[in-house]
Amino acid sequence: MTTDFFADIPQITYKGPDSTDELAYRWYDKDRVVLGKRMEDHLRFAICFWHTFCWPGADVFGAGTFNRPWHRGANDSAAAREKRIVAFDFFQKLDVPFYCFHDVDVMAEAAGVAEHRRYFAEAVEHLEQLQASTGRRLLWGTANLFSHPRFCAGAATSPDPEVYAFGAMQVRDALEATHRLGGQNYVLWGGREGYETLHNTDLKRELDNFGRFLALVVEHKHKIGFKGTILIEPKPHEPTKHQYDFDTATVYGFLKRYGLENEVKVNIEANHATLAGHTFEHEIATAAALGIFGSIDANRGDHQNGWDTDQFPNSVEELTLAVLEILRAGGFTTGGFNFDAKVRRQSMAPVDLFHGHIGGIDTVARGLLNAAALIEDGRLDRWKAERYAGWDDAVGKWIGTLDLAGIADFAEKQAIDPAPRSGQQERFENLINRFI
Amino acid sequence: MTTDFFADIPQITYKGPDSTDELAYRWYDKDRVVLGKRMEDHLRFAICFWHTFCWPGADVFGAGTFNRPWHRGANDSAAAREKRIVAFDFFQKLDVPFYCFHDVDVMAEAAGVAEHRRYFAEAVEHLEQLQASTGRRLLWGTANLFSHPRFCAGAATSPDPEVYAFGAMQVRDALEATHRLGGQNYVLWGGREGYETLHNTDLKRELDNFGRFLALVVEHKHKIGFKGTILIEPKPHEPTKHQYDFDTATVYGFLKRYGLENEVKVNIEANHATLAGHTFEHEIATAAALGIFGSIDANRGDHQNGWDTDQFPNSVEELTLAVLEILRAGGFTTGGFNFDAKVRRQSMAPVDLFHGHIGGIDTVARGLLNAAALIEDGRLDRWKAERYAGWDDAVGKWIGTLDLAGIADFAEKQAIDPAPRSGQQERFENLINRFI
Amino acid sequence: MTTDFFADIPQITYKGPDSTDELAYRWYDKDRVVLGKRMEDHLRFAICFWHTFCWPGADVFGAGTFNRPWHRGANDSAAAREKRIVAFDFFQKLDVPFYCFHDVDVMAEAAGVAEHRRYFAEAVEHLEQLQASTGRRLLWGTANLFSHPRFCAGAATSPDPEVYAFGAMQVRDALEATHRLGGQNYVLWGGREGYETLHNTDLKRELDNFGRFLALVVEHKHKIGFKGTILIEPKPHEPTKHQYDFDTATVYGFLKRYGLENEVKVNIEANHATLAGHTFEHEIATAAALGIFGSIDANRGDHQNGWDTDQFPNSVEELTLAVLEILRAGGFTTGGFNFDAKVRRQSMAPVDLFHGHIGGIDTVARGLLNAAALIEDGRLDRWKAERYAGWDDAVGKWIGTLDLAGIADFAEKQAIDPAPRSGQQERFENLINRFI
Amino acid sequence: MTTDFFADIPQITYKGPDSTDELAYRWYDKDRVVLGKRMEDHLRFAICFWHTFCWPGADVFGAGTFNRPWHRGANDSAAAREKRIVAFDFFQKLDVPFYCFHDVDVMAEAAGVAEHRRYFAEAVEHLEQLQASTGRRLLWGTANLFSHPRFCAGAATSPDPEVYAFGAMQVRDALEATHRLGGQNYVLWGGREGYETLHNTDLKRELDNFGRFLALVVEHKHKIGFKGTILIEPKPHEPTKHQYDFDTATVYGFLKRYGLENEVKVNIEANHATLAGHTFEHEIATAAALGIFGSIDANRGDHQNGWDTDQFPNSVEELTLAVLEILRAGGFTTGGFNFDAKVRRQSMAPVDLFHGHIGGIDTVARGLLNAAALIEDGRLDRWKAERYAGWDDAVGKWIGTLDLAGIADFAEKQAIDPAPRSGQQERFENLINRFI
Repeated sequence: MTTDFFADIPQITYKGPDSTDELAYRWYDKDRVVLGKRMEDHLRFAICFWHTFCWPGADVFGAGTFNRPWHRGANDSAAAREKRIVAFDFFQKLDVPFYCFHDVDVMAEAAGVAEHRRYFAEAVEHLEQLQASTGRRLLWGTANLFSHPRFCAGAATSPDPEVYAFGAMQVRDALEATHRLGGQNYVLWGGREGYETLHNTDLKRELDNFGRFLALVVEHKHKIGFKGTILIEPKPHEPTKHQYDFDTATVYGFLKRYGLENEVKVNIEANHATLAGHTFEHEIATAAALGIFGSIDANRGDHQNGWDTDQFPNSVEELTLAVLEILRAGGFTTGGFNFDAKVRRQSMAPVDLFHGHIGGIDTVARGLLNAAALIEDGRLDRWKAERYAGWDDAVGKWIGTLDLAGIADFAEKQAIDPAPRSGQQERFENLINRFI
Repeated sequence: MTTDFFADIPQITYKGPDSTDELAYRWYDKDRVVLGKRMEDHLRFAICFWHTFCWPGADVFGAGTFNRPWHRGANDSAAAREKRIVAFDFFQKLDVPFYCFHDVDVMAEAAGVAEHRRYFAEAVEHLEQLQASTGRRLLWGTANLFSHPRFCAGAATSPDPEVYAFGAMQVRDALEATHRLGGQNYVLWGGREGYETLHNTDLKRELDNFGRFLALVVEHKHKIGFKGTILIEPKPHEPTKHQYDFDTATVYGFLKRYGLENEVKVNIEANHATLAGHTFEHEIATAAALGIFGSIDANRGDHQNGWDTDQFPNSVEELTLAVLEILRAGGFTTGGFNFDAKVRRQSMAPVDLFHGHIGGIDTVARGLLNAAALIEDGRLDRWKAERYAGWDDAVGKWIGTLDLAGIADFAEKQAIDPAPRSGQQERFENLINRFI
Repeated sequence: MTTDFFADIPQITYKGPDSTDELAYRWYDKDRVVLGKRMEDHLRFAICFWHTFCWPGADVFGAGTFNRPWHRGANDSAAAREKRIVAFDFFQKLDVPFYCFHDVDVMAEAAGVAEHRRYFAEAVEHLEQLQASTGRRLLWGTANLFSHPRFCAGAATSPDPEVYAFGAMQVRDALEATHRLGGQNYVLWGGREGYETLHNTDLKRELDNFGRFLALVVEHKHKIGFKGTILIEPKPHEPTKHQYDFDTATVYGFLKRYGLENEVKVNIEANHATLAGHTFEHEIATAAALGIFGSIDANRGDHQNGWDTDQFPNSVEELTLAVLEILRAGGFTTGGFNFDAKVRRQSMAPVDLFHGHIGGIDTVARGLLNAAALIEDGRLDRWKAERYAGWDDAVGKWIGTLDLAGIADFAEKQAIDPAPRSGQQERFENLINRFI
Repeated sequence: MTTDFFADIPQITYKGPDSTDELAYRWYDKDRVVLGKRMEDHLRFAICFWHTFCWPGADVFGAGTFNRPWHRGANDSAAAREKRIVAFDFFQKLDVPFYCFHDVDVMAEAAGVAEHRRYFAEAVEHLEQLQASTGRRLLWGTANLFSHPRFCAGAATSPDPEVYAFGAMQVRDALEATHRLGGQNYVLWGGREGYETLHNTDLKRELDNFGRFLALVVEHKHKIGFKGTILIEPKPHEPTKHQYDFDTATVYGFLKRYGLENEVKVNIEANHATLAGHTFEHEIATAAALGIFGSIDANRGDHQNGWDTDQFPNSVEELTLAVLEILRAGGFTTGGFNFDAKVRRQSMAPVDLFHGHIGGIDTVARGLLNAAALIEDGRLDRWKAERYAGWDDAVGKWIGTLDLAGIADFAEKQAIDPAPRSGQQERFENLINRFI
């Protein structure tokens, strides 16, 4: 496979922390073994089609700045093909094992159902060839049920059953394509599954329609024999005023309501976590505690701004804490780190795509090295366990066997007066900072 | 019962919208029948002890400004008694049917378990007398498991089992007192059931301890024959960095996880809703959709500030939407509107307590009148139903019987191309504004 | 002038509060005299070109839904002409006296300087005719220095002096066009005059370039004899991470720094105020106190979301407070209420444009009626004055003549011990609610 | 001087990055020369009295947890003396050169003017002795004009002129004490100089009173010969709804309005910056650009919470950027890094005070080392300069000499069409991450 869009860019390889080469990894050494596993197998990096090859550099206040060759004319079959080739060249140059896509990202623009199915099939066939020739794999596929005007009021939660049906068609095809391409997961981000105003919204009906849609997807997955994981991606809002999959805890309740908590996990995005009022690591820890941790959309938000900026992760401090929670959760099974991140609108040079991804990959890699060192050091987990030691002692265990009155009687008879103990937050913080 | 603290204040009665009397209701006419029910029975107003009689007007940056007689010395039995008498005088002067309390609000300060139980029993006995002599009733009781230093790391989620036991003692006693006093509900606000830092926190263990605690409370309720409702009050954070009962959707998932979704409902506070990134009406509508709507803590936050300001509700616009959702949910059963609201630190005159409550009560009452008029008008609900009419038609119903492949085949064979339809948000908004 | 785009929509007129006609004003009665002035002269409503006629209903996550005839092909001279005609028809149907535009809103898309000037001149000529034939007037003109890719790093603050020059050309032409069209004001919103990252930004140089640019505009205004007001529109961020004109207080400091505080005023937008952490009325009151109040961009944000939603104002409570501050500031001179508001992406029917504007106009009109009633009532201003009465007494005046040591000596010698007095916030709030 | 409160804690010294000693500096090596100056002279660390020795560990929802000996009884002269001795022992153990205080932090509680002056004089005399015996110095003094109930509506902006006078007395005395103690600066944080509600507020009058107060302080400073810097500390809100010193840009405008921009600088607090919607480094860079950079209150907020958490700084990433801006501004003159930070309410052990400060000091020290390395490397500044190179070329300089029409004519005649250039944000970010 050849294309010359990135002709000036060398193959990106690991050159070590002291390298002054800007187009090389300084921390991501894919074959280095950390906690018994290769870095590549720990992190399972993926690159997304949409931000990196589909977005033209436009925002609400201005036109696209990127001027990519495949954006200059109509998005027809030839342009879509060129985009796919350039993308796989990019995946190879960065030596990243996985990629992700929405159906409409990889195909020519379609006018209706028939065209949609034809163009998408054409794209999937080409992706299969590209996978074979490059060795790149699909982390997950998904269907875009939010960009076309027909989805302006949602897909599974649309007031119009025909819109729901159009969405079902896309999801069926995207799920089957993901299966055919050996995808590890299938993701649903309900970008417009929410509401703009409660005034015109039947909340309960929409939730029930959404729950049924998800149940149908799970059923179809089993029917076709797809062994990957179905993932929901929480986000609190934007573009909607309120999105039903607000955060991990909300998704958990939703899954329980529709009996899907053993079938579906979450794809956690850093920027969505912070928009919902949580830290990134909180969302991961919550998903792990609830048994629904699946995969990661790696990016970062801007703490001063209130929308999804989808910047590349560049905080080693944040990623250390995030990877620590992933390691504690047992690491990824089918999931991975997908860069749902876009270079800034001013970063229109092709090489900027490399700066963004190299920086992101090295940031996550440093996070892994730090988190692994924290785990190997052992103090952090030991100090935490010591804090709860009372629950593992005789009194704690005994309390665990009593009813409310029994516990209250114990308190009364023993005239207990427990003294507050230091939580040692600053000491914990200093310990963690030793490893960053 | 006599006390002279509010001697200068007249009995507050309904005088109608044209009254220029500042110490009268202009909208709350308790016997007026709205949608077939008296306003008093719709709204079930309650006054809380803590903000109105316990808080001295202090904040993080300054000392108390209120200078109440019962705060001048130690909080001993005499002072607590005086406070209770003044409070019931206040409930009567405002002619509000209900009140609410935490155990420590109504009792002398206690040094340990035995004193706690003795002083609380003394207080409950007095409350029973005051209820009898004044005809005021208890909307709900609760135990304060967050102010004493021993609860600095939570109660049910404390790393120290003895703290858990102390909390269990308080809850047992407060639940039994609530039962004895004929309380309509029992509330748990887990003010410190959360974490300050994930670093030292075993999230899963804390959630499981919290779930078990709640199950024990439910079990005890049934054992003692309490027929009221157990309520959880969601809040996202403050004083903790993260509170486990973040919002209604989170509480729902928590209840489902521990099998308590049919036993426990939510007490929704307006200011907690907005701190969690939701509107007040969203939280009510969500609770109704999930079948866990219980009661309301009426107040308002400040959209420009990020902490719980607990101001008195004064937006008729907001309350119209909130009461509309309550009416749609069928209205209160055991719940009511409790004013979890405090006059500002600068409002240190006793009469300010009247201004605050009168304003709040009239705001909610206007909300009820507006919401009832909207329902009687019928257009709002009709327009909404029309939006979803497709789901009630033949195609919508048929889609409801198919699996994913069946729906996708339908889309393909019919070559559907659903055109977007206007959601008419501005039209809905204009309609609602007609009634405000 | 004829066009059939709004053929089905009747002329919008005042029909009174009891009218059930959705396409009529219920509160805005343009000839009604309030506080000695016609409502039309108080409020000076304007409609903007950009949201209402240029925006296709797209957002970051999806394509346009509006499907207007003039958007179907290229934005050439014919399409631009059609758009202008439809717009003036709309201004007439709503009977709004003013409109506003950016240069690029009203003209065909241009490829370079020459085309820009030619197409803009063509548009201005047509606008002049349309004004003459319809009696509509220009509230303000402006130049769009943020949408074209060349302005991706700002215009006056661009690191590229040629971009600065391109912007100067547009501003010169737009200012001269505004002058020719009898515009009342000229606005500068520095949409990208800010930074995306401090890393690559020379803050001081950019501020100085920005200050000089503004000084050149003021100088040119005088040179051509334009008597209108130059206005800066504050916004804290979006699309930039940080915009230099963060809020009114920041703009004031900027004007003082470059000696322009007597030459330039502010155009305050409600949604920008809330994004900056202020209430709408705060920004107006601040501008009035600092002597730089100019005009209003009427809209509203969403308190739960962190971006510029630009919804139509529909809170009478908010507008009452905002108009009250405007009246206290003496009302508008050259300014007015411009609807910088857009119907929602789902509101794609042409009639939705009427619902949005009618609702907004009536909301502001009710705000005016309430605010006028508050002023005529007099209590609000009197209570406020009483709060500061001490400063008008002998002691207050005497303190005003002393130096620090003198005042301290007074405190010492008199052994003053001022008791806190109630600020009566709840009483003030209740008073205001009487008029809403 | 001896006291045994910290008897178990060793003297804190530098032991290097590899030290496993938790009670030692790993990065702060006071005599190490960085960019030609000792680290101690660069950073000028100070410890504050209020959070560390006065705050009892209380919050809005709960009582103090710290149980310090000097808090057990009344805050009389003996208790205040003990507190001062313990504090200076702490300053010495940490080997920090400076400290800071409010008048009421260091003195016995006073009932009126006379007692205030007597107890404060007593405290100042003792502080002078402690400074002499320990070699510690005063970074800045200030007066607390926000905690006492009399200041509930502000001090300089109080509606009561007697309150203003009381505040003037305290400031005169605190300024003179600061002068006597050799303080380097005098700070004014207007904690309640703002409003709770616009309803009862005369904004202009309050601003003018505030401006005059500040002018009197400046005048008095000169009269007594104090050579230190007068500093204002911006904060947007809390405890007030709106504080007049919202942020650095607002303070700049305020100073310009009252002609004080050459007399007063800003004391920037990290947590106040983020509450105002800015990054910490933005506020420093803005102050530097405006010529009013003074000193730093080092701490951090919580990006998920909306109040002033005043945690110890522990992000090396954030401090690297902050110190970089300080170095670019020429470093401190009279200012320094004061830890306006408190250990968490759960961190009640005395040793936690050491963990907090050691962590904070090492974080800032690493920030200095990183920032210095970035400056020495030179690429960051060079890349930035290259971005603006056009302004230093002939065309840029020529444009700098033209008026608006001249520049516009240039654009037209040259038919310029400047192509957007990459801002290289990701490349800049990667470069900076090399040094963290």
